Amino acid sequence: MSDPFVVIGGDAAGLSAASKCKREDPDREVVVYEQSDWISYAHCGMPYYIKGEVDALEDLLSLSPEAVESRGIDLHRRHEVLGVDPESETVRVRGPDREFEQSYGDLLVATGAHALTAPIDGTDLDDVFTMHHMHAAAAVRAFLAPPGEEVDAFDAGYVDVDVEAYHSRDPPETVAIVGGGYVGVEMAEAFRARGLETHLYQRSDRPVPPFGAAVGDQVAETLADAGVDLHLGTAVTGLEGNGRIERVEAADGAVDVDLALVGIGIRPNTELVADTAVACGDSGAIVTDEYGHTTVDGIYAAGDCAEMDHVVTGEPDWVPLGLTANRAGRAIGQTVAGDPEPVGEIAGTAVLKAFDLECGRTGLVDHDAAREAGFTPVSETVTAGSRSGYYPGSADTTVTLVADRDSGRLLGGTIAGEDRAAIRIDTLATALDGGLTVAELERLDLAYAPPFSPVWDPVLVAAKVLGGQLDEA
Amino acid sequence: MSDPFVVIGGDAAGLSAASKCKREDPDREVVVYEQSDWISYAHCGMPYYIKGEVDALEDLLSLSPEAVESRGIDLHRRHEVLGVDPESETVRVRGPDREFEQSYGDLLVATGAHALTAPIDGTDLDDVFTMHHMHAAAAVRAFLAPPGEEVDAFDAGYVDVDVEAYHSRDPPETVAIVGGGYVGVEMAEAFRARGLETHLYQRSDRPVPPFGAAVGDQVAETLADAGVDLHLGTAVTGLEGNGRIERVEAADGAVDVDLALVGIGIRPNTELVADTAVACGDSGAIVTDEYGHTTVDGIYAAGDCAEMDHVVTGEPDWVPLGLTANRAGRAIGQTVAGDPEPVGEIAGTAVLKAFDLECGRTGLVDHDAAREAGFTPVSETVTAGSRSGYYPGSADTTVTLVADRDSGRLLGGTIAGEDRAAIRIDTLATALDGGLTVAELERLDLAYAPPFSPVWDPVLVAAKVLGGQLDEA
Repeated sequence: MSDPFVVIGGDAAGLSAASKCKREDPDREVVVYEQSDWISYAHCGMPYYIKGEVDALEDLLSLSPEAVESRGIDLHRRHEVLGVDPESETVRVRGPDREFEQSYGDLLVATGAHALTAPIDGTDLDDVFTMHHMHAAAAVRAFLAPPGEEVDAFDAGYVDVDVEAYHSRDPPETVAIVGGGYVGVEMAEAFRARGLETHLYQRSDRPVPPFGAAVGDQVAETLADAGVDLHLGTAVTGLEGNGRIERVEAADGAVDVDLALVGIGIRPNTELVADTAVACGDSGAIVTDEYGHTTVDGIYAAGDCAEMDHVVTGEPDWVPLGLTANRAGRAIGQTVAGDPEPVGEIAGTAVLKAFDLECGRTGLVDHDAAREAGFTPVSETVTAGSRSGYYPGSADTTVTLVADRDSGRLLGGTIAGEDRAAIRIDTLATALDGGLTVAELERLDLAYAPPFSPVWDPVLVAAKVLGGQLDEA
Repeated sequence: MSDPFVVIGGDAAGLSAASKCKREDPDREVVVYEQSDWISYAHCGMPYYIKGEVDALEDLLSLSPEAVESRGIDLHRRHEVLGVDPESETVRVRGPDREFEQSYGDLLVATGAHALTAPIDGTDLDDVFTMHHMHAAAAVRAFLAPPGEEVDAFDAGYVDVDVEAYHSRDPPETVAIVGGGYVGVEMAEAFRARGLETHLYQRSDRPVPPFGAAVGDQVAETLADAGVDLHLGTAVTGLEGNGRIERVEAADGAVDVDLALVGIGIRPNTELVADTAVACGDSGAIVTDEYGHTTVDGIYAAGDCAEMDHVVTGEPDWVPLGLTANRAGRAIGQTVAGDPEPVGEIAGTAVLKAFDLECGRTGLVDHDAAREAGFTPVSETVTAGSRSGYYPGSADTTVTLVADRDSGRLLGGTIAGEDRAAIRIDTLATALDGGLTVAELERLDLAYAPPFSPVWDPVLVAAKVLGGQLDEA
């Protein structure tokens, strides 16, 4: 075949595209190059593997290489794509044994993202980890596991760290987390579950900034209640040690630690197309159209390396999340197979478990971001019960809604609470997609039964209150 | 004042209207007539009071008479409205001491519904109950409670049954439920929690018909697993006894019982307007416009006695549920106060707890109903996990989606599962309000995090499968 569908990257977006294309057009040659050993692994599950709720590292693999190959996909692991030449429609590939050219009919860039390196000294010390690869998950789990605990990473085969060496050492007693985003908060739960003294450093005044003030405050309170030593509004100035990490230096002083986890964000991997006409947007990620097509003929991009259109602003945005990658990949696979399918828009919907607190966010939450998009944001935060007051198990549920004052349109929202709060964010995500106003949100016919919701669901209560503010405006 | 806002009925719709009107227009005279002692009680909570999860009968009261009066509302309990005269704009009222005329400027008919009487002999026997009033809840709780259990109904003051007499008797050992709707299923849970041999009779082949086949089958399985003796597709032909119920006669034979609960549905209370120009629709309930106004000037209707427009069909429908009553009442109170507010549409969204199974439904589920509304229904049922497969606690979640073949528009759906399934129906209810197609539903940016949802939420999985069927059509 002269026109194979070539996919660079064997994770969510890449393998979704490859699988869908092969299913829709079984005669098409589909080739996937993945630079590492790992394919299709659940990045989001790593904190739970380390916590011990997930037994084996393999459990985090959605697909085995064998399963991919059995779909008729020509999968090459340990193959790095070194360059893309849109003129000749080829990519240059370096495998374990040789370098070669691969021609493509359609090309998908699904190169993902990489962890940001903190601009401080000492991040290269031993026992300083970045939770972005399975290797780190394997190492940290092995390090944390008490001597008796079996560490199933041994069986995974292709971990490039010496898991047994980590397992044979004394487990750490004090750990530091640099960065209070999703992974930082989830790892705090894992570390506390292991009984470790846990210090969490966050440069801004609240953890998980994308969730806004109301949720951030509750997450902070939850972390503190769970015994996490919070260092909010505190910059880490350096990691110190002699070979191994020994101490965190921060604006509020030094803390001796046995392990540090640095998670301050990720950036899209776009180096591969830097010298081509494939354009990147303001976010730094690759510009794509509604079918995931880049600015160069025959080249698509999806997943953590690509921008997508935001459902509220209609403008390109970069929100690297798992569903987005899977969906865009799948759509591109279908498009490449000859049946064009839009990749969909993003709302930045995200949920987070912080110990027993369930949090969610969607759309535009930050007022500055809303103003930048041309809206006049107004918002209200309410706290209401998750069930009928008389029914056991009702829990305070805090909802923030953001709307545009002029049009009344819902722009975004957040939620936090211990009783089924997270999944309620889907109501708001769906309302954003439908372009609902706050008045329309207020009139939604949502579910009511004492065990699950009060007559007025917390989302409806918030809509009523914000609707009142909009009426007065 | 010559133009009071007069409300007939002191439950959800009536008191929501009265309260909202008084809040918006404090000078307006607002008069509420309630024929019973009870106002604003949580009908939906009665099974949980009987089960024992709710301690006191008073806990089910949302508002005390004193609280209503403190809002400046002129509340009259034990006052029956005997007739409405739109010509003279008066209602005729019978109080405990006298009959009198009350003039109105605006009138709200919020007379609710009454339980259907089963067309069988023996429903007037002692210990045959209909779970439609707090009196019955008080009696059944007292009857079921073992001698040592304190029954807090004693304190409620205005129960018209001899609760102590019920409590002093030997608790029943075997009970029959006639009717497998919401209340029947919830009461089965309550009876089994009390350790009673419980027979549930349902004339059709499945319980809870509005939830469709997939959910109905799961509810039946759940009830059977919980030890409920199911008599499906079985008509009860009579209740027999000598003063007290002793036996249920049904198509499949006779069962000796100590208590029977009959719940075969409700009908709107519209007798009061039968001789007026206030029109009733095909459903038997009162016709209203988008502001809850009836066909007669100055007369509104809301709650279980009124029709509302269905969000999918745009046609009037009668779905008596708590949120609808509250919302419509509140909107009418605002409209009457001079600031017109639509009552909103209904989707028939409902959720049900059947032991540990959470069920939800919204929109048009039944294919015949969809065809009657002019659609060509197609549907798919899928079962998917509620969380990432590797994360503990994932539970099978079954989603049925119904769509119109020609337009691809979502018409309705159901859901059942043990892990946060019920609240997910709100996603579909919101999608119905937004008029989303299945393709749009499939592209929703819903929440994903291992503890709460797999990458592809069960709702999205169902949308993908139904979308595939629509593409082929």
